[in-house]
Amino acid sequence: MPTNTPVAFLGLGLMGRPMAFHLLERGCKVAVWNRSAGKTAGFAEKGARVAESPADAAKGAKLVFTCVGDAPDVEEVLFHDLAGATTKADLGTLFVDHSTISPAKAHDLEVSLRDEGFRFLDAPISGGQKGAIAGQLAIMCGGAEADFAEAEPVMRAYGKNIVHVGGPGMGQVCKACNQVLVVANIMGVAEALNLAKNLGANPEKVLEAVKGGAAGSWSLENLGPKMIAGDDSAGFYVKHQQKDLRIVLEAAREAGLPLPGTALIHELYKIVQNRGGDEKGNHCLFRALEVMKGSDWRAE
Amino acid sequence: MPTNTPVAFLGLGLMGRPMAFHLLERGCKVAVWNRSAGKTAGFAEKGARVAESPADAAKGAKLVFTCVGDAPDVEEVLFHDLAGATTKADLGTLFVDHSTISPAKAHDLEVSLRDEGFRFLDAPISGGQKGAIAGQLAIMCGGAEADFAEAEPVMRAYGKNIVHVGGPGMGQVCKACNQVLVVANIMGVAEALNLAKNLGANPEKVLEAVKGGAAGSWSLENLGPKMIAGDDSAGFYVKHQQKDLRIVLEAAREAGLPLPGTALIHELYKIVQNRGGDEKGNHCLFRALEVMKGSDWRAE
Repeated sequence: MPTNTPVAFLGLGLMGRPMAFHLLERGCKVAVWNRSAGKTAGFAEKGARVAESPADAAKGAKLVFTCVGDAPDVEEVLFHDLAGATTKADLGTLFVDHSTISPAKAHDLEVSLRDEGFRFLDAPISGGQKGAIAGQLAIMCGGAEADFAEAEPVMRAYGKNIVHVGGPGMGQVCKACNQVLVVANIMGVAEALNLAKNLGANPEKVLEAVKGGAAGSWSLENLGPKMIAGDDSAGFYVKHQQKDLRIVLEAAREAGLPLPGTALIHELYKIVQNRGGDEKGNHCLFRALEVMKGSDWRAE
Repeated sequence: MPTNTPVAFLGLGLMGRPMAFHLLERGCKVAVWNRSAGKTAGFAEKGARVAESPADAAKGAKLVFTCVGDAPDVEEVLFHDLAGATTKADLGTLFVDHSTISPAKAHDLEVSLRDEGFRFLDAPISGGQKGAIAGQLAIMCGGAEADFAEAEPVMRAYGKNIVHVGGPGMGQVCKACNQVLVVANIMGVAEALNLAKNLGANPEKVLEAVKGGAAGSWSLENLGPKMIAGDDSAGFYVKHQQKDLRIVLEAAREAGLPLPGTALIHELYKIVQNRGGDEKGNHCLFRALEVMKGSDWRAE
């Protein structure tokens, strides 16, 4: 599909806004919509059509992207009786959902859309707001190969590592796996640096000594220094991490698969949440360990 | 200290043997000793002096390296009444212990050796047999700055990232942190790939999609493919991993520090050990998850 394809982008949050701007920069004809209208600021000036509703945005679009919260939000944006995107979209339109929802829900969406004559890819993203702004997101896609081939060149506007993982729902399965890895690595960094500090070692020296070997991870290099500095600011919110882990653990439960580590981490994040940390960074798992050790930490 | 310094190397196991050979290649005058004499094969031909006992090996050495099992082994090699290295070593000799033992024990050793007029560095290593053979070990050192400066050029024979972490015991603290990171990362990879498989995704595709981002780690890239292939062979034994975690958890307990993740992983490895997996690789934590899911896996 050429990059000047008419597309709609629904959901202009921390991630969606920079993604939609990248589509405009690539030369796409973009219609945008957001639930709270303030987020559409700046789009008209760049040549986007600011739509009244998802339905309005979807008119004439070949591709309709969604980037909202959880499954109920996606469902409303797509299927609302009066204003949902499917009410005005052309038959055959390809819907691409960048939200993180459960694999089962993604599968249901694909079936519902196909029943109505549309097509669907689940395409959750990773890389944070930083990745969205830089146009360097990882995109994990589930759906038909031909649909992936059609959407992929357009997603290149904001994606870097764009992988077709498998059939419907497999993008969300991959995202679930991604989140399991992210939080396990964070837990390791949090425990290791707390251990270093409590046993009298300089955590910066420890980080330097171990990062290049079998202990190394993205989390150690990128989040370790924030933990050492006591910087709680968010690259990815604790509350969103917890939503994603809830999805992971539900999917695992449905499959009868124990995930003891992920389940423990989900519990530990509650210590952070119960002290006001919902909008702190997901590396603040280290605060849970500090609290368990006796600290009075609360989010400011 | 020049690289032709007379040194002793005590303990020629999987790690010690290639390390001692590297010292010979660098031009050191090396005396070697091993508890079971068979491991000294090949050393005389390369110009080493094969000693009768630790005491015999330590005669005339400026540096005495130990690379044995746990703290009681180190103590015996150094302090045995009749054959211990300290019985024949010159006053002022610098002892460098590459074994992984507890930080508290390393601290005790330093005090004991200093009381007898010797010097000591705790210098545990990371990188596995592969790293020892390649001469690319990470070495985490605790002790006096001047002693580190003296030993460092000699350790370059087999070390790459050689860091002076802090005072006595701090090398072992660093190694403990290293092991916490290693097993947390392994747990993440094991849970993520099990999840992928159980939810119908191709684990190779998942690995490809996520390894370059925030989910990335040495474990994912190096041990993920072994888990996917069902290859249980060891780079690092489960039994040694468990010994190291026991040291970590004891040190944390003494400091009153909870390490919930590491404690859980130590329990999960018991599933692998109870099915004959002591000499399988530490990535076989994924077998514990398979067993929890219903698999009949036993080590062959």
